[in-house]
Amino acid sequence: MSSIMPPLAHRLDGLRSSAIRDLLKLTARGDIISLAGGLPDEQLMPRDRIARAAEAALADRSRLQYTESAGWGPLRAVLAARESARLDRSVPVEEVFVTHGSQQALSLLAEVLVDPGALVVVEDPAYVGALQVFRAAGARVVGVPLDAEGMRIDALVELIDRGERPALVHTVSSFHNPRGVTMSADRRRALAELAERHGFWVVEDDPYGDLWFDGSAPAPVASYSPTVIRLSSASKILAPSLRVGWMVAPDAVCRGVELLKQGADLCGSALTQQIAADLLADAGWLTAHVDKVRRIYGERAAALVGALRDRLGHRLVSTDAAGGMFVWADFTDGTDTADLLPRAIDHGVAYVPGSAFAVTRPYRHSLRMCFTTADTATLCEAVGRLASVVGE
Amino acid sequence: MSSIMPPLAHRLDGLRSSAIRDLLKLTARGDIISLAGGLPDEQLMPRDRIARAAEAALADRSRLQYTESAGWGPLRAVLAARESARLDRSVPVEEVFVTHGSQQALSLLAEVLVDPGALVVVEDPAYVGALQVFRAAGARVVGVPLDAEGMRIDALVELIDRGERPALVHTVSSFHNPRGVTMSADRRRALAELAERHGFWVVEDDPYGDLWFDGSAPAPVASYSPTVIRLSSASKILAPSLRVGWMVAPDAVCRGVELLKQGADLCGSALTQQIAADLLADAGWLTAHVDKVRRIYGERAAALVGALRDRLGHRLVSTDAAGGMFVWADFTDGTDTADLLPRAIDHGVAYVPGSAFAVTRPYRHSLRMCFTTADTATLCEAVGRLASVVGE
Repeated sequence: MSSIMPPLAHRLDGLRSSAIRDLLKLTARGDIISLAGGLPDEQLMPRDRIARAAEAALADRSRLQYTESAGWGPLRAVLAARESARLDRSVPVEEVFVTHGSQQALSLLAEVLVDPGALVVVEDPAYVGALQVFRAAGARVVGVPLDAEGMRIDALVELIDRGERPALVHTVSSFHNPRGVTMSADRRRALAELAERHGFWVVEDDPYGDLWFDGSAPAPVASYSPTVIRLSSASKILAPSLRVGWMVAPDAVCRGVELLKQGADLCGSALTQQIAADLLADAGWLTAHVDKVRRIYGERAAALVGALRDRLGHRLVSTDAAGGMFVWADFTDGTDTADLLPRAIDHGVAYVPGSAFAVTRPYRHSLRMCFTTADTATLCEAVGRLASVVGE
Repeated sequence: MSSIMPPLAHRLDGLRSSAIRDLLKLTARGDIISLAGGLPDEQLMPRDRIARAAEAALADRSRLQYTESAGWGPLRAVLAARESARLDRSVPVEEVFVTHGSQQALSLLAEVLVDPGALVVVEDPAYVGALQVFRAAGARVVGVPLDAEGMRIDALVELIDRGERPALVHTVSSFHNPRGVTMSADRRRALAELAERHGFWVVEDDPYGDLWFDGSAPAPVASYSPTVIRLSSASKILAPSLRVGWMVAPDAVCRGVELLKQGADLCGSALTQQIAADLLADAGWLTAHVDKVRRIYGERAAALVGALRDRLGHRLVSTDAAGGMFVWADFTDGTDTADLLPRAIDHGVAYVPGSAFAVTRPYRHSLRMCFTTADTATLCEAVGRLASVVGE
């Protein structure tokens, strides 16, 4: 027999691997301090508590069976209570849908809410996983810039005034990836009002909201309107391998996502969903655990930002890192961060160039640094290496 | 603020919930013996062995972290060895891709291999999860009938001779869901030859291959050609909540699926993937475990088929149930199984009417019965109730 391969679908033609993922592979060398990643610190994940929860979950054989597409009932109930407190309204269980990480919620929502050719507005620079999903859904993706108060709502209004009609606006409202900033309360309210006035969906993607260092982020955009769909996740506060994300959305949206999830993967894991439910319902333990993660990430963020200002303050400006996992910096001396990267790697330090997150603007002088997985001394050493490359 | 909801995407217009899932919800009443399900028996799932594996997996904190999109490396290695033995050739790890159940493999493959408007051939009656996925991908879906030797390859040839050019042919080659039959060795070879000659993909969906009762199924279709992509799963032999399915496919296909999986859900769970790897690599234990499942399912299948022939043999013909989870029967007396269902439920027995699996033919006199989750006495009682409804 011949070994000629039948063709692949045309929709693959434009797709390429995420720049961040490819970079991560390059920087796995032990002698490189990588600030290029985007992983939570596995040393801070509650391994022993998860082990206890796993043992408890396995006491019931029905945790080994298929579960509901919308998620294991008791987890949805725990999440409904949690989100009711967060949103300051009573969230019914029917409006909570558990997904395989919040990336799956994004991916299924793109299919449920976006027709091919429809306009989707994202923040610029953007979360790459959102860009990829909306482009794959055939959307026309337009970026709106961010400043220190988050998405520039004035730029969104200008876009609408020009006659553009978004089907959906995506925002990482708190401790933005990659831009580090948090949307102000006034802008949150304004965004929700615009959505209602002009009939578009907002997807508020909030994996980092619990990781505040000095004070929590303002009330979610979703607290202002039911047309704002809120996504969150256990990956950053508990463990990514539970693969538990969730969304809060109107019933019609949840039912659309349910139909698509049946085709996508039938259902999630009742086993890891019970583990997540157990930990998220253990209020005293959870508070102490998340407080510890906040404190350690906060120290690391402060060390990174401090070192950047000490060593490179004359050449760049960086965000304050009030929460989340990332610091964003812009070189003011014309340094091109994509050009710099190979030399930085030679000097034993890696980051993600701003261009990897670019939608409309190029972000040629910007970079994203992740502070979660290195201790403060290592972060200072990383900045020292970066300073020596730039100073060459 | 108003509460007017923005519109949902048009692609939802034609979608509806799976008839089987809706039925399952109706027949959860305790007084109904439901043969309508399609679940493995959770009493036979290796709970204690999974608990030991979970404990071992959690000894390493990195099992809590994100993992590779293609699957946790050591699981892929275990699967490569397993599939090398099955396919009688050396399967490299790069050609093994772990998915969130084999449903996710189907769903991602539909996007990687099928352009909108392309022809996809499925078996008629069809696995509903495949139908749903190919229709959602915009394929033109055509059914080819099955007989006691599986897919009617002569009907496929006739289709091709009429000038039709399939992009993909989907088959549940062993112990078909819903039809119960297994494709003969001659037809497997013929299907692979046709795929190579006419340049189409075959997706061989094989979740039931290990569940044979008297003798194993013939060598996989995939053993005859690399243009045959093989899907399998741990759900039916270990536990669905591990959410571990996998595919064996050429490298270019795996890389396409990898790009799409990054957008779909980033990655699977390193925790449940290590549990699956542990159990699948424990050869002695696995053989004893699967032997036990085979023996018990075999007894149940024989009881169901025996009772059908005893009580209803003058009115219907049923498959032999040589493996898998389902018996298919056709009424020969004109009974309409969709019309009969409400009365059957009134008499305390449920099944899935053939029409739920119909692609081209209506299957109005057919029904699918699942024998995995009831003991032999209960199965006989179910047939007794069915006989009393039919006899009314």
